[in-house]
Amino acid sequence: MKIAIKEDILKEEDRIGAENRREFLARGVAAFNLIGSPGSGKTSLIEAAYRELGGELAIGVIEGDLASDKDTVRLRNLGLPALQINTGRGCHLSPLMIKKALPEIDLAALDILIIENVGNLVCPVSFDLGETAKIGLISVAEGDDKPTKYPLLFREAEVVVLNKIDLVPHSDFDREAFYSGLRAINPAIGVIEISCRTGEGVEEWGSWLRERVSSPAGR
Amino acid sequence: MKIAIKEDILKEEDRIGAENRREFLARGVAAFNLIGSPGSGKTSLIEAAYRELGGELAIGVIEGDLASDKDTVRLRNLGLPALQINTGRGCHLSPLMIKKALPEIDLAALDILIIENVGNLVCPVSFDLGETAKIGLISVAEGDDKPTKYPLLFREAEVVVLNKIDLVPHSDFDREAFYSGLRAINPAIGVIEISCRTGEGVEEWGSWLRERVSSPAGR
Repeated sequence: MKIAIKEDILKEEDRIGAENRREFLARGVAAFNLIGSPGSGKTSLIEAAYRELGGELAIGVIEGDLASDKDTVRLRNLGLPALQINTGRGCHLSPLMIKKALPEIDLAALDILIIENVGNLVCPVSFDLGETAKIGLISVAEGDDKPTKYPLLFREAEVVVLNKIDLVPHSDFDREAFYSGLRAINPAIGVIEISCRTGEGVEEWGSWLRERVSSPAGR
Repeated sequence: MKIAIKEDILKEEDRIGAENRREFLARGVAAFNLIGSPGSGKTSLIEAAYRELGGELAIGVIEGDLASDKDTVRLRNLGLPALQINTGRGCHLSPLMIKKALPEIDLAALDILIIENVGNLVCPVSFDLGETAKIGLISVAEGDDKPTKYPLLFREAEVVVLNKIDLVPHSDFDREAFYSGLRAINPAIGVIEISCRTGEGVEEWGSWLRERVSSPAGR
């Protein structure tokens, strides 16, 4: 019975995710579900997207955090419309949380909605928020073995952003080991190497988003 | 009804956690539940403990990972008895997983059992595995705002280990902001600053463990 109830909940969540997806499509918004560990640089990556594309595309943000509105304040100070969802003890954003937030966002005015999930490489992957694509973010400081040890995200993401490449000389990160581990999980996945701190790779990140927005219905 | 069932499951988990705790006490083992983000350096911290204390105290390890036995192999190569638990899609170790693993470990021969939880700052905090103490691990690369954004762990841990302090000069980490955020969550918590890479602070980490082991029944 426990299992049946769990399945019912998951089915209901999937239904709501599909509803969100129809809403995004109807309004012509490309929605990106940004998933990465705590401190991998999710908010910095959104800031970089805004600096790169803010002049040509309208970007909005939903911020998921257990507590605090630090990141939302940070983005609003930049001029980005951002909405905070606090999950309390919740380890992920759910399709229902997104559905409830959408009426507060002027979707018709947006080209891109970036949903920054709770910092977590595991639980967020299991929920389809209705996104156009999942973006997997990982930082050099986390080590080159993360795809092997946390394969879920790397299987489902459409692209992996490898952040903090300025730390490569100051760490034991082995690029070859990273790529071979990642390719074993997902041979075709694209990787964007970036340093939000130095600006390296930010142009490529902007190009990826620009291209992806022009084909919002998916690959 | 959903809620009632969830509560029943949690109560059952708590009961098993208490059983594990009695087992650890009966065998004179201090058990540490090590919780931190992916890539914060959990396995490196265990290696450092072994290098520091391996000559005087008997240390064993339970390794929790979604997939792979990379860390267990790494620890066994050092000479540390380590047991792997793979959780699949599971975002935390549960009291039941630990209970099932215990018969495979010669507890009577150990002074310390370190349980490396799945890399995750959220879900593992909610489960009492029966540990003597929770150890919160965070790395400089994750940023100084983590206590504010992920308060759960920092409320419940007995000590916080701040790893990768060799990266402070190469990052925007602000020690003052970190400590003031942490103290707002948990005014009394101890902090051990460490670099598993350079060896800085490892002696203090060893001293903390040594002292904690001599009073396994709690503070």
